[in-house]
Amino acid sequence: MASSDPSTALAQAARDAFTASQLLDASERHLALIAVKDALTAAKQEILEANRKDIEAARDQVAAGSMSSSLLKRLDLESSADKYDSMLQGILDVDSLPDPTGQVTYARTLDDGLELHRVTCPIGVLLIIFEARPEVIANITALAIKSGNAAILKGGKESIHTQNVMSRVIQSALATTKLPSAYIQTVSTRSEIASLLSQDRYIDLVIPRGSNSLVKSIQNGTRIPVMGHADGLCAVFVDESAVPEKAINVVVDSKTTYTAACNSAETLLIHEALLSTLWPKLAAALLSAKVALRCDESTLAALTSSSSEAASHPAFSTLVSASTPEDYDTEFLDLILAVKAVPSAAAAIQHINSHSSHHTDAIVTESDENARAFSRGIDSAGVYVNASTRFADGFRYGFGTEVGVSTGKTHARGPVGLEGLVIYKYQVRSTAAAGHGTSAFGSGPGQKPFLHTELPLGQSPF
Amino acid sequence: MASSDPSTALAQAARDAFTASQLLDASERHLALIAVKDALTAAKQEILEANRKDIEAARDQVAAGSMSSSLLKRLDLESSADKYDSMLQGILDVDSLPDPTGQVTYARTLDDGLELHRVTCPIGVLLIIFEARPEVIANITALAIKSGNAAILKGGKESIHTQNVMSRVIQSALATTKLPSAYIQTVSTRSEIASLLSQDRYIDLVIPRGSNSLVKSIQNGTRIPVMGHADGLCAVFVDESAVPEKAINVVVDSKTTYTAACNSAETLLIHEALLSTLWPKLAAALLSAKVALRCDESTLAALTSSSSEAASHPAFSTLVSASTPEDYDTEFLDLILAVKAVPSAAAAIQHINSHSSHHTDAIVTESDENARAFSRGIDSAGVYVNASTRFADGFRYGFGTEVGVSTGKTHARGPVGLEGLVIYKYQVRSTAAAGHGTSAFGSGPGQKPFLHTELPLGQSPF
Repeated sequence: MASSDPSTALAQAARDAFTASQLLDASERHLALIAVKDALTAAKQEILEANRKDIEAARDQVAAGSMSSSLLKRLDLESSADKYDSMLQGILDVDSLPDPTGQVTYARTLDDGLELHRVTCPIGVLLIIFEARPEVIANITALAIKSGNAAILKGGKESIHTQNVMSRVIQSALATTKLPSAYIQTVSTRSEIASLLSQDRYIDLVIPRGSNSLVKSIQNGTRIPVMGHADGLCAVFVDESAVPEKAINVVVDSKTTYTAACNSAETLLIHEALLSTLWPKLAAALLSAKVALRCDESTLAALTSSSSEAASHPAFSTLVSASTPEDYDTEFLDLILAVKAVPSAAAAIQHINSHSSHHTDAIVTESDENARAFSRGIDSAGVYVNASTRFADGFRYGFGTEVGVSTGKTHARGPVGLEGLVIYKYQVRSTAAAGHGTSAFGSGPGQKPFLHTELPLGQSPF
Repeated sequence: MASSDPSTALAQAARDAFTASQLLDASERHLALIAVKDALTAAKQEILEANRKDIEAARDQVAAGSMSSSLLKRLDLESSADKYDSMLQGILDVDSLPDPTGQVTYARTLDDGLELHRVTCPIGVLLIIFEARPEVIANITALAIKSGNAAILKGGKESIHTQNVMSRVIQSALATTKLPSAYIQTVSTRSEIASLLSQDRYIDLVIPRGSNSLVKSIQNGTRIPVMGHADGLCAVFVDESAVPEKAINVVVDSKTTYTAACNSAETLLIHEALLSTLWPKLAAALLSAKVALRCDESTLAALTSSSSEAASHPAFSTLVSASTPEDYDTEFLDLILAVKAVPSAAAAIQHINSHSSHHTDAIVTESDENARAFSRGIDSAGVYVNASTRFADGFRYGFGTEVGVSTGKTHARGPVGLEGLVIYKYQVRSTAAAGHGTSAFGSGPGQKPFLHTELPLGQSPF
């Protein structure tokens, strides 16, 4: 069926490609990944040349002040010597992961000769929207093929030349495989996105990878489920029982190891019993790590007392200041930490549940009881005890890859691996001579009950 | 924090009740279920009296032609002798199911003294919208408490008196337990719903249980994830290799055992090789079961041939007619079946993927190859081989209960049990003397790799 609207035609082509691909064995997806990797290897010079055009245009924008130099760096496939090769290796890494599809997660014998298997399968057609970094195209292509989903990709306009060449190379590679070439498609203009977001008949899931404003604007504009993260406002609570060494290690690591990451801490809560003991030591360590401290009245007063280690720190006057209420709702993404004293673990839990973005929050404590209360009471994707919030990452969790981080509370939550790109279907099979109808089951005369005996899980038998 | 908007206050109260409940042990939820069941037992006469008021008002509406008598029957808690007691027993049945929360579904040792557990937990606050049947209040209350979710319930205005009394009884019962009484709240007007659908800050999931139009209007009006089913347009395909006994058993059961159910078949596809052999026998069986057959040209011509069993059936002239294109997109919910001949299994798969509602579809076949192609190629929650589509049901699948049926493709698909009301959080715990930071890990000098060794699953240790 042809359509006059190009976005409808594109979405429908993706759906048809998905449907056709369902009859292929998983081994064909492996071959497609290798073909894509080989084609991107062969086209390296052509792709880098296109990338240089994007970089040139971006340099002009940086000079004109309309683009940040960090964005320019993210665009540049040659910003480090091994960036391109890492991109290619990433495809092989995804290829080597276990197949997330075809796994039986629930199975029962319903009756003699009647079996039920719940089997993982691809979701269908993904619409993935990302910004800047062009190597994401290779990464997402690999994730989509590995998980059996067709994908429509929309990158930032800044990398348009790179995207166009990479997209053509990937489609040519797919044309040599059994996967339909419309399995991976790329769109480049923002107007196409608005139209694609209305294609809930053909598109099953939208994955925005980028800024908060991107994610929110997409959630507002579609009936298609969206898997994205709204914010990364993580907190660390230093409980009354905390010991200084752990508190300093966990808080400094949470704040300083990569400030631009969504799993970095933005808020520090300190039990008020520690204000004159642990807190000045921790503050001194944070000041040495160049962290600006935006303190509430109690934590500020505790630092300014003449006896504290922090007060005598050379960076004190430049880095310590009074906080505003907004600081406790701000994702700084910088060496800045909002600090607040709380009277109890319960008050810390309440503050975090009201102000955090439900991403990852940590407690530093020696109390099993408070660790348990924090882990149960905090409504976040990650609840950590004596560990840095920065562990919240698909690779660190052992997923082998990361599709994104979800702050939603259905389907997938927290760092998302390949499992987040699959759903399941129920397969019922009868081997009885007359097949199986439902009228034979029940509590009436001549009827029988269901057996519901467990069957083995693991790889699907079909 | 008080709010001037009553819906905001209500949603926030539900959120606060959820948060407070997280610190309670699961055993408190068991006690709450028993308290609710006991209170509904004690209040039986009062509730039935309120129900009679609803029935009286409904009778007037039926007499005036503005309500169907089937709706009246669904409203009536005394329409069968054991309806009320079944409702009470349902609470105990849900109570006896395994706790869906606190289950470890992924666990790894990340480093010596650093463990990661993914643990199932409640989603948060549910908004559940249903129509007519007042006993659903007891059912949903039980499901919410069992799964650890707070809930806001909105029933149909037809059962307003019954709802009000039941709601008051349930809240009084909760007040005697450790669960907050705002854990289960009821709203009664349609205007409140519109306002609640905008409370994505406090409400995590909307579950509409009712008509297609209800589900679609809700999906259009909210950013909150919706778990509902859009339609129940199921198909049965009788493949070239099918034997008559199985085809008749599966198709007649799929169509006739409960026509108002969403898992009933609405479309029958017949391989064209069977038009003069199996099809007339199957048609005769369907006619004997009083099923009206809306046939495409080929299947109609095959029946009208003078030698067919169907042509001589007494009901032939009243029940057999030519189909229109719309018949293949219609959920009849009645003894009507749209029939079409197809040239191949591939054509059947294509028809079903284009026209079905992705609920449950079945193939009748003796071919393993076609069974496999159908199971893989059909993009539906249920893909059945030689079994009636009517098996698609939470109780028949062995879940012990059914929250609803989802035709969505994220979070939960098909019949949904208690598992559909939980998500998970990642718990990371360090027992190292200095806690755990991330800077120690990596491939740089002095850094170490992650271990990622598997830990046991099952019940959470925390």
